[in-house]
Amino acid sequence: MCELLGMSANTPTDLCFSFTGLTRRGGDTGPHKDGWGVAFYEGKGVRTFHDPEPSATSPIAEFVSQLPIKSKTAICHIRQANVGTINLSNTHPFTRELWGRYWVFAHNGQIPHFVRRVGMYEAVGDTDSEEIFCDLMNQLRQNLPRDAMPEQLARTLVSLAEDYAQQGVFNCLLSNGDWLFTFCTTKMASITRRAPFGPAQLADADVTVDFAAETTPNDVVSVIATEPLTADEDWDVYEQGEWKLWQLGEVIVAGKVEVPGNSHDRTPESMS
Amino acid sequence: MCELLGMSANTPTDLCFSFTGLTRRGGDTGPHKDGWGVAFYEGKGVRTFHDPEPSATSPIAEFVSQLPIKSKTAICHIRQANVGTINLSNTHPFTRELWGRYWVFAHNGQIPHFVRRVGMYEAVGDTDSEEIFCDLMNQLRQNLPRDAMPEQLARTLVSLAEDYAQQGVFNCLLSNGDWLFTFCTTKMASITRRAPFGPAQLADADVTVDFAAETTPNDVVSVIATEPLTADEDWDVYEQGEWKLWQLGEVIVAGKVEVPGNSHDRTPESMS
Repeated sequence: MCELLGMSANTPTDLCFSFTGLTRRGGDTGPHKDGWGVAFYEGKGVRTFHDPEPSATSPIAEFVSQLPIKSKTAICHIRQANVGTINLSNTHPFTRELWGRYWVFAHNGQIPHFVRRVGMYEAVGDTDSEEIFCDLMNQLRQNLPRDAMPEQLARTLVSLAEDYAQQGVFNCLLSNGDWLFTFCTTKMASITRRAPFGPAQLADADVTVDFAAETTPNDVVSVIATEPLTADEDWDVYEQGEWKLWQLGEVIVAGKVEVPGNSHDRTPESMS
Repeated sequence: MCELLGMSANTPTDLCFSFTGLTRRGGDTGPHKDGWGVAFYEGKGVRTFHDPEPSATSPIAEFVSQLPIKSKTAICHIRQANVGTINLSNTHPFTRELWGRYWVFAHNGQIPHFVRRVGMYEAVGDTDSEEIFCDLMNQLRQNLPRDAMPEQLARTLVSLAEDYAQQGVFNCLLSNGDWLFTFCTTKMASITRRAPFGPAQLADADVTVDFAAETTPNDVVSVIATEPLTADEDWDVYEQGEWKLWQLGEVIVAGKVEVPGNSHDRTPESMS
């Protein structure tokens, strides 16, 4: 399976610590060696890095892991390919512009033979994940007003996600820079760090950070990942069908929908 | 004024040499210190790097200048801001998806008070350049068939460019990864390197390269830039209103249209 990493914070925060942990799983502590990508929002702008190389040995990943890019919202993905060849165009996260904002999407799962409904957004690569993203964007453009409030947005996103989850495995991270939508059908966990901050130890690398030294008392930083990234913190594990809409580090809307049971066991080796 | 750099080659080629020269002009040998960006096509995928920092001192630019990313088509831009604040969302090149391809655009010039016609593509930042790009993309989507041949594509692009040039200064680079469209209203030059290859010396840095050692006899690599980047080669200088459509390092269609005279003198200090 692939792995996802998202961040939502109330102050621009760098992703170096979590990114270092996740990228270890791209060919070192994990098998997700078929490319990686990350998107950092800075205001309405988004800075992306993509590489079809294994993240554990990618010079670009090594460089990015040391870049103090500070963002309130970030989305990262490491890939273990099943659908679609290993190349740049198939590397998550994917980006499209809608209503004057960049929307960024990363997917963990697989929807075999997914067929996108007609709309203006089209996939460039040949993954089911990008087809799903384009379908989602087409549906949003056709069914939502551009000034939709988070609650209305969440209702539409959840009904779309519920539909996708009926067709396969659909864990996703989606953002327009203003909020971060997370949906889990099989595996996802989150942690919210706030004062008093303490130290943390990565599960995948011999790296420890003392958040107290890098934060202010008002900081709220939440990290969402397929699997917990630290060995010494208590992560909240999403239930199957659980979704959360994050903003500024906090959950502003959340809920749970019915998804086909054991969907994780159903396709254990085919998560894209 | 800003500066543009484009590359069209018949074999995947790295941009390190030219990129090193151009980025010197971003705060060192030139005043274009308000951000920079570059897009490298790899197949249908595109790898972009953006930074609102001066390219001459940007750690990311330094890193990219040493990355052996090999591409047949690349577009780079260094910015001297006039319209739009200095931030990531205003940093060229801009990218949108159309007909399942990523289209990348960089602009040198200014069209004061430009008003985009209605269409699905909208600017994220607040530069005239991104508004022009979105207008251009909207017009292409509305007026061209998705399977348009280069000649038909060129006719449409030139008529749009001619219209923009009537409203201000419009030097641009545009690509969908398959070809590179270049249009000049004030300043642009190109050079095509092919066997027998020789050495070249950057005009902006004490860097020399021996292309013979890095190429094969069949390679054809063309570089298009606002100002020649090397001190010891003969560059072809575009005339005002001249345009060329490049593919695999060669010009496949070219022409010239009437543009308002002295448009360069008209806005000497206001090129975005």
